Amino acid sequence: MEMPFPREEYLARLGRTKERMAKAGIDVLLVTAAANITWLSGYCSESAYVPQGLVVRADEEEPTIILRKMDAPAGIHTTFMHRDRVIGYPERYIADPRMNGYDFIAEHLKKGRIGIETDSLSWPACEHLKGRLGRSVDASGLVTWLRLRKSPREIAVMREAAEITDLAMAKAVEVVRPGVRECDAMAEVMAQLTRGTPRFCGDRGTVPLMSQGPLTGTCHLAATDATFKEGNHVNLEFGGFRHRYAAPLMRTISLGPPKDKLRRLHDAMLDGLEKALAAGKAGATCSDVAAAFNDRVAKDGFTKESRCGYAVGIDWTEVSASLREGDTTVLEPDMTFHLMLGMWVEEDFGAVLSETIRITDKGAEAFGRTARKLFVN
Amino acid sequence: MEMPFPREEYLARLGRTKERMAKAGIDVLLVTAAANITWLSGYCSESAYVPQGLVVRADEEEPTIILRKMDAPAGIHTTFMHRDRVIGYPERYIADPRMNGYDFIAEHLKKGRIGIETDSLSWPACEHLKGRLGRSVDASGLVTWLRLRKSPREIAVMREAAEITDLAMAKAVEVVRPGVRECDAMAEVMAQLTRGTPRFCGDRGTVPLMSQGPLTGTCHLAATDATFKEGNHVNLEFGGFRHRYAAPLMRTISLGPPKDKLRRLHDAMLDGLEKALAAGKAGATCSDVAAAFNDRVAKDGFTKESRCGYAVGIDWTEVSASLREGDTTVLEPDMTFHLMLGMWVEEDFGAVLSETIRITDKGAEAFGRTARKLFVN
Repeated sequence: MEMPFPREEYLARLGRTKERMAKAGIDVLLVTAAANITWLSGYCSESAYVPQGLVVRADEEEPTIILRKMDAPAGIHTTFMHRDRVIGYPERYIADPRMNGYDFIAEHLKKGRIGIETDSLSWPACEHLKGRLGRSVDASGLVTWLRLRKSPREIAVMREAAEITDLAMAKAVEVVRPGVRECDAMAEVMAQLTRGTPRFCGDRGTVPLMSQGPLTGTCHLAATDATFKEGNHVNLEFGGFRHRYAAPLMRTISLGPPKDKLRRLHDAMLDGLEKALAAGKAGATCSDVAAAFNDRVAKDGFTKESRCGYAVGIDWTEVSASLREGDTTVLEPDMTFHLMLGMWVEEDFGAVLSETIRITDKGAEAFGRTARKLFVN
Repeated sequence: MEMPFPREEYLARLGRTKERMAKAGIDVLLVTAAANITWLSGYCSESAYVPQGLVVRADEEEPTIILRKMDAPAGIHTTFMHRDRVIGYPERYIADPRMNGYDFIAEHLKKGRIGIETDSLSWPACEHLKGRLGRSVDASGLVTWLRLRKSPREIAVMREAAEITDLAMAKAVEVVRPGVRECDAMAEVMAQLTRGTPRFCGDRGTVPLMSQGPLTGTCHLAATDATFKEGNHVNLEFGGFRHRYAAPLMRTISLGPPKDKLRRLHDAMLDGLEKALAAGKAGATCSDVAAAFNDRVAKDGFTKESRCGYAVGIDWTEVSASLREGDTTVLEPDMTFHLMLGMWVEEDFGAVLSETIRITDKGAEAFGRTARKLFVN
């Protein structure tokens, strides 16, 4: 298969990883987070529900990926490494309580000071592995934090993802109409996310999140077979994916003239969004961005309790920096975030607004071009 | 929101859970697997990426669900419990390294002998929780195994899921044609999975898996922007979802007259499928079903290395019984499995075939009605 990035890009990522390993005194790193495996190797098959791992050794140029046998050809097809760097373990390791795939993986960690990403392993899996290895150190976060600042090639891919997102949101604005079933509208959105553009596909669609009416007080529900009703408003959150990089976007659509309450909240959010974008410049902190938004909406008496966003990239959320007051991470150019300004202010009432952004010296730039407004259908 | 099952259904599930808790000496059970939470409470919001849990106490009729505050309204809307059984923890617990949502959850486990589903917790999360609780026992699998045998209402829901699957596979057979981009075809499939039927929606679509040509030697890849090519064959795996219950299905489509090699393999698989269905009767074992298939394909010189299927229900795979030789689980009526007969026999060549089945006294019944054949387009 065509690789999304050239070999030198992966080697550069591995180089940065090895620098961190050296600082942490790690000779051999077991990467278990699916997004980190993709970032370091290109691997992109849906196999993370069984034991697998990427082994990065400080003294070897290419890492080794260890997969269940049926996934090993996907390792050969989708990673940048030489084929002898792809190891498939026998299928008899699967679903047999007497067998454990981590035993196989452990054999390939060889000697040296071992680091393990424990935060992407279940407790029993990690306990088993640790018991097998003897000494190891916890390397959770080591790779994940390196992903925060994107390369120029990654930025280009995220622009493509945002292009897909824009098309899907335009489709949503077209089809979310009173009388239409929620699921029929979301079917059109899902199709657009998967289809992508005439130039490139969307490679992975997560479930579009949506709510209407009294369900807008929460954020992670999906479409049902209810119909859209005049007078309700609809909150939407979804993202196009390109080479597994996500570009999430949230918008609210009012079905009929917006009620004053919705308009007031959304106006404050819109203005707060501009303030947050302006604050998102290199040298400022994550906290500054959140404070810019929070201060603005406070002027109208609103409080956003949840964080104002999080690092975004492969597989959507990156577990590293957050745009929340108190997060002192210093912003650097080409860090990317989902500036997530949804406000669920009452149990049965909320509105949403967001942008996927990159940090520049002058402020945050939104990847997408969807109008920043309360849509009215 | 409309609940998929009546209150008595959830109470019956909880009753069976409490019986197992009593046997295991557990007074209070922390359920952490998202599918188990859904099974016991109805909860169905996409929030499992942050700390959450369902607390089942032996001496209380209803469980308590603990969620991040922004998800608490979804707890109220989608569970069968009284609203005071839904607890939202403050947003400040999210993404702050000094805070841990499991501290909040631990406070609600109160006194008594505590059981924890450790296999759905990351190692660091579980270690933190254990440290906080003092003594606890590992209750992984306790709830999951109870889900294996379905209630009549669950069977009815899985029939609906299979109805969606059939429509989506019919759509795939319609659109997978030479010259069409893979992603454009899969967009139609995703749309159908989301749309469901005119009577009910599909509530959750996972990424349809597909491969063509030399990529058919592996199983978990998704569509790209390549076009389908005459002479290739295409392997498909996806499932309709209804109230989160999946009904997976796999079929192979040959683009043009099938090559002899494909025909030979697929003929053996088709015959093996019938043998496996006949073997899937109450009183037999999981192993018997796998052996029936394996023995049949061996006659033509083929070997399926991977298991022949696994328990299926909420969120697709249930981590309990598998249709593999050596699994001595005794089949009971209304156990449900994905009888998964994909064979990836060479690095660049494989074919697929499957049915979602329920066990009856007379053999396994397939939920779907899609023709069992090698499709030729």
